[in-house]
Amino acid sequence: MQKYKLIIAYDGTHYSGWQVQANALSVQSLVQKALETALRSSIALTGSGRTDSGVHALGQVAHFSTEGSIDLFRLRASLNALLPEDIRILEIEAAPEAFHARYSATGKTYHYHIQIDGPINPFKRLYSYKVFHKVDLALLKEAARLFIGTHDFSSFAHEADKGSASRDPVRTLTRLDVVEEPNGFRLEFEGNGFLHKMVRNITGTLLDISYGKIPLEELPAIFAAKDRRIAGRTAPPHGLFLAKVHYTYPKI
Amino acid sequence: MQKYKLIIAYDGTHYSGWQVQANALSVQSLVQKALETALRSSIALTGSGRTDSGVHALGQVAHFSTEGSIDLFRLRASLNALLPEDIRILEIEAAPEAFHARYSATGKTYHYHIQIDGPINPFKRLYSYKVFHKVDLALLKEAARLFIGTHDFSSFAHEADKGSASRDPVRTLTRLDVVEEPNGFRLEFEGNGFLHKMVRNITGTLLDISYGKIPLEELPAIFAAKDRRIAGRTAPPHGLFLAKVHYTYPKI
Repeated sequence: MQKYKLIIAYDGTHYSGWQVQANALSVQSLVQKALETALRSSIALTGSGRTDSGVHALGQVAHFSTEGSIDLFRLRASLNALLPEDIRILEIEAAPEAFHARYSATGKTYHYHIQIDGPINPFKRLYSYKVFHKVDLALLKEAARLFIGTHDFSSFAHEADKGSASRDPVRTLTRLDVVEEPNGFRLEFEGNGFLHKMVRNITGTLLDISYGKIPLEELPAIFAAKDRRIAGRTAPPHGLFLAKVHYTYPKI
Repeated sequence: MQKYKLIIAYDGTHYSGWQVQANALSVQSLVQKALETALRSSIALTGSGRTDSGVHALGQVAHFSTEGSIDLFRLRASLNALLPEDIRILEIEAAPEAFHARYSATGKTYHYHIQIDGPINPFKRLYSYKVFHKVDLALLKEAARLFIGTHDFSSFAHEADKGSASRDPVRTLTRLDVVEEPNGFRLEFEGNGFLHKMVRNITGTLLDISYGKIPLEELPAIFAAKDRRIAGRTAPPHGLFLAKVHYTYPKI
């Protein structure tokens, strides 16, 4: 058996997310089916983690194992011919046996795109969140800095997961950059791990602060409360991109 | 009566083009209906010219006239609330009585986006033509220069229009720039007027030359033949954007 690593880009607009779900079209199920067709064998495909319905990926990572030798260039072409154009296999490479798309990940980068000026850009409407409030960008940048570092992010974790989540709510955000773009900006989040909906909940809270709806001074109390209900709103999925999954392992 | 000029952006993916057609959803008909709803009167809307099914616009221009005073900022907000998000009114301004979206136009700029490297970018799939042949970009640039200037463009006009078209096939292309972009390039066409499908026919011919399918030396003979059948293929609509319509008239 040989293990392989896939890097996958997808437009999440028409999917229920990465993860296989009953009665819903997931990216994982389509990639797995394409692999099984191309390799003529049953394949188990494991992703680095979920992306929610409507969330996009520039570089989702997954692994699978199979017997026999594979022409990786031809396999990529076959998979891309079998898949719809809104899902693309960017890279396939052999990976060490110890590699695991989820457990070997040392961190992730997410981008969240926001449009502030003018009418919705019709070409960005599916890939950027258009806000209509006035945004104080200097205030938003100041607030963003307060999220960097190691914190208990319970107030920014999806509330419905609270009971079931045995995951540690303490995470480290190593970077939260505000990068200006034409008519708006993107937030770049980099960290060692993210709770469910954490990026969208932080984004919504940053926007609420930038609108003047939540005073910046309340942020320490919001963290301390460990209560999702007192932080800001959840930003919609379509502005969010899983940009990169980070690993440190030797190439083979 | 006061005349108004509209600047309109649209994603052409889901439309039959700009022009009103029976049994098809056109951008013009939706904008006209939105104007009639917002202004509560019958409106005649005239565009700068057609865009074909699937072609996009960054800056289509249209005019209409109406009685009474209008709050232009509120009208734009009303129209954008009434229209689907893939059609956006970017600007509305009062125009002189002599202004005509079509006849006052002194020229147009079109962009055609082409992706050459790697798999299709899922986020550009509706807005850029992905080619799979190897492109000789230096040769394409050399060929592009030969289109600039005043020529009889009959070999690049839509053949079906030949009988009915009383339009002069002699046009002036003032600019045809090849602008490199990530994983590809765009062609920027600027001229005093364009025949039906001229941009897509020139683009297809430039690509055929860049693939080595049409020798560069044949280009003068292709122009001289005035015969659509001997030039290259027609590039698909989804890479094409009407970028700007040019006018020279005093602002009021």
